[in-house]
Amino acid sequence: MNLAHRYGPWAVIAGASEGTGAAFARRLAAERINLLLIARRTGPLEALAAELRAQHGVDCFSASIDLGAEDAAARVAAAVGARDVGLFINNAGADTNGSLFIDNDLANWEQLVRLDVVNVMRNCHFFGRRMRDRGRGGIILVGSGACYGGLNGIAAYTAVKAFDLCLGEGLWAELRHHGVDVLNLILGRTDTPAHRRLLERNGQPIPAGMASPDAVADLGLARLPHGPVCNWGLDDDVVGYAPNSAAQRRARIVAIEAASASYAAKK
Amino acid sequence: MNLAHRYGPWAVIAGASEGTGAAFARRLAAERINLLLIARRTGPLEALAAELRAQHGVDCFSASIDLGAEDAAARVAAAVGARDVGLFINNAGADTNGSLFIDNDLANWEQLVRLDVVNVMRNCHFFGRRMRDRGRGGIILVGSGACYGGLNGIAAYTAVKAFDLCLGEGLWAELRHHGVDVLNLILGRTDTPAHRRLLERNGQPIPAGMASPDAVADLGLARLPHGPVCNWGLDDDVVGYAPNSAAQRRARIVAIEAASASYAAKK
Repeated sequence: MNLAHRYGPWAVIAGASEGTGAAFARRLAAERINLLLIARRTGPLEALAAELRAQHGVDCFSASIDLGAEDAAARVAAAVGARDVGLFINNAGADTNGSLFIDNDLANWEQLVRLDVVNVMRNCHFFGRRMRDRGRGGIILVGSGACYGGLNGIAAYTAVKAFDLCLGEGLWAELRHHGVDVLNLILGRTDTPAHRRLLERNGQPIPAGMASPDAVADLGLARLPHGPVCNWGLDDDVVGYAPNSAAQRRARIVAIEAASASYAAKK
Repeated sequence: MNLAHRYGPWAVIAGASEGTGAAFARRLAAERINLLLIARRTGPLEALAAELRAQHGVDCFSASIDLGAEDAAARVAAAVGARDVGLFINNAGADTNGSLFIDNDLANWEQLVRLDVVNVMRNCHFFGRRMRDRGRGGIILVGSGACYGGLNGIAAYTAVKAFDLCLGEGLWAELRHHGVDVLNLILGRTDTPAHRRLLERNGQPIPAGMASPDAVADLGLARLPHGPVCNWGLDDDVVGYAPNSAAQRRARIVAIEAASASYAAKK
């Protein structure tokens, strides 16, 4: 597959400063796709943009945008301007709250909803409409296995990720008739700086067998034509629990709670 | 089960003017639970409140609040005041857009997100925290089978309903240790005025075998102690498609698209 032909000439990566976002950026620059890199921190973004311009000769620039802010999507659209974007990758959206829903201040969950629901929806509407009109493109929503629901201790996070999963599926259903590919790339444990910070904060050891960001980016781009879902580490046709079995959903929550020391509900 | 003992003395119903919301109100008033009825339209709400006061001698009042407005949750909290609420039923949240995600104005989807994501989350946080502190209570989130994902033509609706499902599951996991019951009551086709209006607008016939609002309210109250999920018309242990099978999710979307004339994606 010629990525530049199918998803060029410009790609936008939201959450590009490190980890899987940076891995996507390096992979796409090597394919001669121009890049708009978005994240909050200016330093790592500008360093990555300079690296990609120097190594691959692509047009690459960055925009410092807080993707959880109310004006984030408007600022993304302004940064894009009239550039012909063929690929949008949403790689932002981690939850750093680490608190039960009821215990934490509502303002923190509202910020998570802006980050993972409102702004993802706005960006998908903006890029999806443009791609439909040009009859070509791709959207990757980097997600979490939390999207399959019901994990105790991360009620809001599993809810926003379920939103993104179903939005992506609906987009896939709409846009596949217009030459636009949509993929929910559902990660397992991935060896990113953000994940390592989370493990350290929780006092958890670094687990063996985490996915590398490069391997995740490779899988996402390879599976993008075969949406709407790709689960890291699982074959396309793996069969798990039933989403509309009340008993299985209940049992799953209880089983994960029992197995999870760090997220055990306070009794 | 003595409902007033377990879920009284006050219940709050969001979306109470007709259909399942009004059915819940009549059922609870008959059990001598006081009621705050919330919806946008004042007339039907006040008529229902007067009916319940007269028939059952309960304390019952209404508040006209647009549950899709930015200030809705603050207004709900103000209407509740210091009343001792033991049951919150979210029965609002229908999608009247009837449009593909990409075709419709973003502002309409943002309104749906306020209605079904932001304000549901705010209300659950408000009532959930109070119920946890008093060590007793119940929350029913009336949902839709769209919560199981990926239906073409209703991308935003399936996403907000998936959010509510997973939020409710997370709440169930947190609050069950504090004497608070949480149930996602997932409806099938129900014979409500809103559903009949939707069918009429789409030029669809009234299907046979729709659930009655009274039966839905009865089921919800009976199953509330057995959360986090109850699917209308399905036994607790029914097994459906696998949520983490990429192939099954893809096949489900395509199959529903093929079977659905009214929501067929435009080609």
